[in-house]
Parts: sequence; C-alpha cells; structure tokens
Amino acid sequence: MALIVQKFGGTSVGTVERIQQVAEKVKKFRENGDDIVVVVSAMSGETNRLIDLAKQVSDDQPVPRELDVMVSTGEQVTIALLAMALIKRGVPAVSYTGNQVRILTDSAHNKARILQIDDQKLRNDLKAGRVVVVAGFQGVDEHGNITTLGRGGSDTTGVALAAALKADECQIYTDVDGVYTTDPRVVPQAQRLEKITFEEMLEMASLGSKVLQIRSVEFAGKYNVPLRVLHSFQEGPGTLITLDEEETMEQPIISGIAFNRDEAKLTIRGVPDIPGVAFKILGPISAANIEVDMIVQNVSHDNTTDFTFTVHRNDYQAAQQVLENTSRELGAREVVGDTKIAKVSIVGVGMRSHAGVASRMFEALAKENINIQMISTSEIKVSVVIEEKYLELAVRALHTAFELDAPARQGD
Amino acid sequence: MALIVQKFGGTSVGTVERIQQVAEKVKKFRENGDDIVVVVSAMSGETNRLIDLAKQVSDDQPVPRELDVMVSTGEQVTIALLAMALIKRGVPAVSYTGNQVRILTDSAHNKARILQIDDQKLRNDLKAGRVVVVAGFQGVDEHGNITTLGRGGSDTTGVALAAALKADECQIYTDVDGVYTTDPRVVPQAQRLEKITFEEMLEMASLGSKVLQIRSVEFAGKYNVPLRVLHSFQEGPGTLITLDEEETMEQPIISGIAFNRDEAKLTIRGVPDIPGVAFKILGPISAANIEVDMIVQNVSHDNTTDFTFTVHRNDYQAAQQVLENTSRELGAREVVGDTKIAKVSIVGVGMRSHAGVASRMFEALAKENINIQMISTSEIKVSVVIEEKYLELAVRALHTAFELDAPARQGD
Repeated sequence: MALIVQKFGGTSVGTVERIQQVAEKVKKFRENGDDIVVVVSAMSGETNRLIDLAKQVSDDQPVPRELDVMVSTGEQVTIALLAMALIKRGVPAVSYTGNQVRILTDSAHNKARILQIDDQKLRNDLKAGRVVVVAGFQGVDEHGNITTLGRGGSDTTGVALAAALKADECQIYTDVDGVYTTDPRVVPQAQRLEKITFEEMLEMASLGSKVLQIRSVEFAGKYNVPLRVLHSFQEGPGTLITLDEEETMEQPIISGIAFNRDEAKLTIRGVPDIPGVAFKILGPISAANIEVDMIVQNVSHDNTTDFTFTVHRNDYQAAQQVLENTSRELGAREVVGDTKIAKVSIVGVGMRSHAGVASRMFEALAKENINIQMISTSEIKVSVVIEEKYLELAVRALHTAFELDAPARQGD
Repeated sequence: MALIVQKFGGTSVGTVERIQQVAEKVKKFRENGDDIVVVVSAMSGETNRLIDLAKQVSDDQPVPRELDVMVSTGEQVTIALLAMALIKRGVPAVSYTGNQVRILTDSAHNKARILQIDDQKLRNDLKAGRVVVVAGFQGVDEHGNITTLGRGGSDTTGVALAAALKADECQIYTDVDGVYTTDPRVVPQAQRLEKITFEEMLEMASLGSKVLQIRSVEFAGKYNVPLRVLHSFQEGPGTLITLDEEETMEQPIISGIAFNRDEAKLTIRGVPDIPGVAFKILGPISAANIEVDMIVQNVSHDNTTDFTFTVHRNDYQAAQQVLENTSRELGAREVVGDTKIAKVSIVGVGMRSHAGVASRMFEALAKENINIQMISTSEIKVSVVIEEKYLELAVRALHTAFELDAPARQGD
C-alpha cells in the first residue's frame, strides 16, 4: 500500500466526462489499497475566461490580490466536481481549497511561493479512508489572503503535497505518455524514457520539452520526491523522474535531445576590449528586464572584441534598442542580430563519465554540413545555436548519432 | 457620515457593464463621506450554471458539502470584479469571501444559518478608508467547511453584516424601485410606499411580494436594522422598512394588498367529529413534508365535520393522496379539491387600532359579487381565498376601497 499524489491538469478535467474518467482512474488506485491525494487544475479554458473578465473591468491591469480571489475559483469548481464524482462511485472523498488545507505561501500575488503545508487534515482524512482532492495552483498568505502560484503551479502543488506527506510517488497526468528522447513530431523514432534524473529533466524542460513545469521539477529534486509523468487516459508506466542513484551498465551517455526556436541572437561588434565590458553590455539588458540565455565573447584581436548573446524572440526588439545605445556609448563598430536561429542541446548525466561527447555532437552536425554559430556547455548538457532551417535535420542526426532511435519494429 | 451596507443581487451584477455601474454608484456614496460595505451575489445565471455542472457528475444528487464548495465560487468571482472596478476608479477597496470575513455558520450545507460575524477585519478596512466587498450567501462552519445560506441568502448576509457593524442602514438594491401597495401589473394605481414596518413586510413577502427574502426581513426586524429597498440603476428614495416607532396621524389603516396563485385547496367532508381529528388529518400531511397554509374547520352537524386547508399547488397531488388514505381510515365521506383558487390579503399595522377592517374588506368583495371560500386573520392581516378568475378584480376593488390608489396626476 502506497501513498500517491496524483495531479491532473486542465485538459484532463476539461469536461464533465473527463472528470468522470479521472474519478474512475482514482477509484482503481484506491481499490488497489493505495492512499490517494488528488491535485487538480481548473477546467481547461476556465482560467482564461476569468482573466478575461478581470481585464474587462480593469483596463487590462487587474489588481493582483483580486485577480487571485477570482482565478482561484477555477480549481475550486474542479475539486468539488471530482469529489462528487468519486462519492457517486462509492469512494469516500473530500475536497479542499489551498486555504482549507492550509497551503501557506508568501504574499507575492499571482506568483506566490509555497512556504509551508499543514498536513494534519489530509492525514486524518487518509486515515479515515477518504480520497483527498486538493485545488492546485493556490494557497493563502499569513494574513488570510488568497494567493496563486502562477501558471502551471498545479504541478508545484502536487510535488509540495507529496513532499509534505512523504508520498511514495507524485504522478503528473498529462496529454503525453512520458518524457521522450526528443520531440516525436521531429523524430518519429523518438523513444519514451523509462527513467530520467531531475537534473536531466530540468535541462530538457528549460530547453523546450514542455511536459512539466520547471519549478515543480526543482522542488521534486530538492525534496527527493519521485515524479512520474503519465498519460491521463492511456495505460502505461510513463516516465519516472528520480535522483540518479543507480548508474547501470546500460545507461545511455545522453538521455535526450532538446531544442527550441524561441531565441534570437544579438552581436555587438568591435567593442573596445577593456575590463568590465561584459557588464557594460549586459547590465543595461538586465536592467530592461530582459533575460539572456547563451553568451559568447570571441577572442580579442586589434584590441576589440565581438560579444554575442541570445534572448527570447519576444525581447529581440527591445534588446536591440538597448544594445544600439550601448554600442554608441562604448564606441563599438556595429550591432547585428538574427532571429532565424535555433538551439539544439544534448542532455545526459552519462556525459559526466564519458569524454568526447561534445566532439561526437560536432562531428554529427559537420557530416550534415550544419554550421555551428554558438556553443555552450554545462556538466550534463551541450547546446549549440544553428540556422533555424537546419533544426529538424540536426535533431534527427543527433538522435541517430547517440543511438537513441527506437529499433525498427517488425513490419515497419 | 453614515455606515451603510449595500447589497446588489445577481441581476445588478449580471454583466461587466453592470458591475461598472455598481462601482460608480458606490463611488458616489463614498465621495459623500459614507463608509460602505458592499455585499454581492453571483452574476445572474452563474449559480444555475454551477448547479447544473454539479448535477451532471452526481446523477442529480450533488453532495451538499461539495455543492457549497462549488456554488460559493459564483460570489467569489463577483467580489473580485467589483473590487477591481472600484480600485480602477481610484476607490480603495478589498474583497472578502465569507470565510475570510469569518461569517461563522452552522454546518447545514446549502441552507446554513449565520451564527456569528467577526467584524474586526471589516472595521480595520473601513477605518483605513477602504470599501469592503463581501461575498453574499456564504460562510464557513467551525471546521472550516464552506457553507451557503441557500437561495436568496445574500440579502441575509447584508442584513447580518449591517447588524454586526451596527450600520445606519442596509440598502437592498434590486430591479424594483421599492415596495408597492400591491402589484402594479394588476393595479396601475399602485403606489410606492415610503415606509413599511418589518411585520407588514413579512406578511407582504410571505404572501407573494417577492422583493426581499423573508429570512432577511426577520433578521432585520430582530436586530432592528433599517432596511431600504432601492432600484439598482434608477435614482429614488425606495422604501424604508423599520420598526413601527412613530404612529402618525396619517398612517393608513392598511399598507398593501398581497396575493398569490400558488395555493390549492383540499377538503375532507363528513369526518366523524371526535377529539384529535385535526391532528389525525394534518399529521400525515406534515409527515409527508407538505406545508399547510390556511386551515378552516366548519361547525359540526350530525356529529360530522368538514375540514379544509390549503397547500402549495406543487404539493396538491401528494396531499390529495395522503388525504384519501386518511379519509378511508377515518370513515369520512369524501375528499374534494380545487386548484383554481387565489389568496388575497390586506396587510397593515393600522388595523390594530381600527375596528371593522375585515367587514370593510368583505363588503368591497361582496359589491363585486366575489364569493369568499375561506377566511383567516392575524393581528395585522386578513386573508381570503376566492376563485382564481376573480383575483385581479378583487385586488383592484380592495385597493380602491382602502384608498390606496394613487391620486390621478394632471393630464391623466
């Protein structure tokens, strides 16, 4: 008998029929003897409907405190519906809002952080044989104000509850059946991973595999809560995300290939190469609230240097303007930019113990005549920036080069 | 500077535009220097939408506790929207759910009663110059479960808050501009009453003038909270409902004429006239959860009696069946019924000090050849049952006989 926290997102509870399917699934686990805490999001579309109403009365600038009072009702409706659906099936259940559990957060409305969870009520209910249904995404601050954790916060609620209850597993139900070696739409031979480490998942998530919210993975890693990604309405073991405790012989060098097209590249050329120039360039960018991802400074020649970085494409225009100003102040030669780039990364804890991973990557890309514009490496990741049009080709080539392709099935 | 509690029902906050109109109205009062607590209902249609969802997952039998979790979200959305609309207009405001105020109720889900209100938070906000927007219709029990007061409970919330805060007035905004001497659709000469007593209002409300919820009037009377009924979107003084403190010379004998068509009449004929027969007849009716309104037992002759009572028309079939059984058991002659009846009542505290009011009523009806089937009287009310087709005629005749008609205006 295990204690399992199960989280169902907005699509999984998007209609009355789906809520009933979720109730059936929970009932099966319960009949297996497991203790179940369910965390649910608002029915899909509901949060946007509420935000839209709020904007209508607020000239698009809803007061954060009141916005939380409003949008938190979305999950409140779902918990009641799911509890009703369970009780109708003979499964004792009870619903709680974030405030009722007492999920204590700070007071940062619309993006609050969980500080503490009172697990007493939940433990009593579990002991009494009840399934507990908790509203995701919301909490309450020390003054009794309703707070929300920001978009995707329901994953975080699930993990935080699992940590507080020392649950055996936190299952995140979603519209994919697990984490894949890369996007199957790009590489049909992509395979579902049985297991992946928190670290790898963080690199995969931040690089574009939008299966889980980053914050929830960080949280799970910090408290060592085993996370499992599963499909809401298909059977299957999903992908387990855990600490890297047992390195097996068969462990692949890399676990997956992540990519994204969300970035743009900016280069300031012919900057006088004096100490502190990096700060002089990036300081104003950061002051403009623009996040920088990859940064490369080329080797200096004739006392000037070229400085390149990437930003989110949405920030490209703003970053370019800031950089033009900086360029004038520093007496640089010119600012050039490129939005037609893509970032491709290989991710794997296996590369810690294997040399030559990066060169194998570069070799695979060279074979396809794909030019690498920027490179950045971390302990378990190598990222390159390439021309956007080569993205699919690059991902497929790397997937094959690192032996991630699924074996051809008979009849294929 | 007064402290005013203002309650706006579902129609008054039914759209974003109307919420903005309400915000404008509240702003004006605030600018007059009044302290304002606003109580709002769910946007019209929202509560039904939620109940409908609940029924879909529950085979039409939603679990009461979970239903309260759901439907309470309706008001929660409105409080946030109104607070946002006020803040946008430069009026400091804050919203509270029933739980946040702490409106403590018993645990009778879907029909809870208010036990206690913590006024500390509200007083602090008022002192700080904020308008406080409170969700009507909801509260929390001692275990932290969300409760609702049942349909129309927002009026009760308004009155209860006014009582707790010792407010100068509780204003109920609605879609009529006050309480009338009778229904203006039946009697075009009906007049708006400047003032009416709680007692009269209770008799008027229970008899079919559906302006205010009975419970809220009882509550207001008990705690002597001056109630004012006003139109949400028209200017005007409305009708003030208070204790009958100053009896003036001009006080009319009766204040209004109420009526309804919701009742049906049942008679059991030729019942052996033995002690306890009334209980033998009405006991089974009450056991079937059917409420009885008027009761008449005719004078006994040849040791049998005729016993007549009225029930809501919806209960007519059920009551008839129960009565047929009773008839067989008691050896009565027959059961007869009539659904084509109407009840007309004259209401007024003035009749306490004036004799002959009932006979004046009967005279007016006799003049129109309207036969009276049943009569029931209380200290401030005389009700008669007549054939339904005479209803309008009877109301008009009585309105004139008791000098309630508005004086013909010039040009009329």
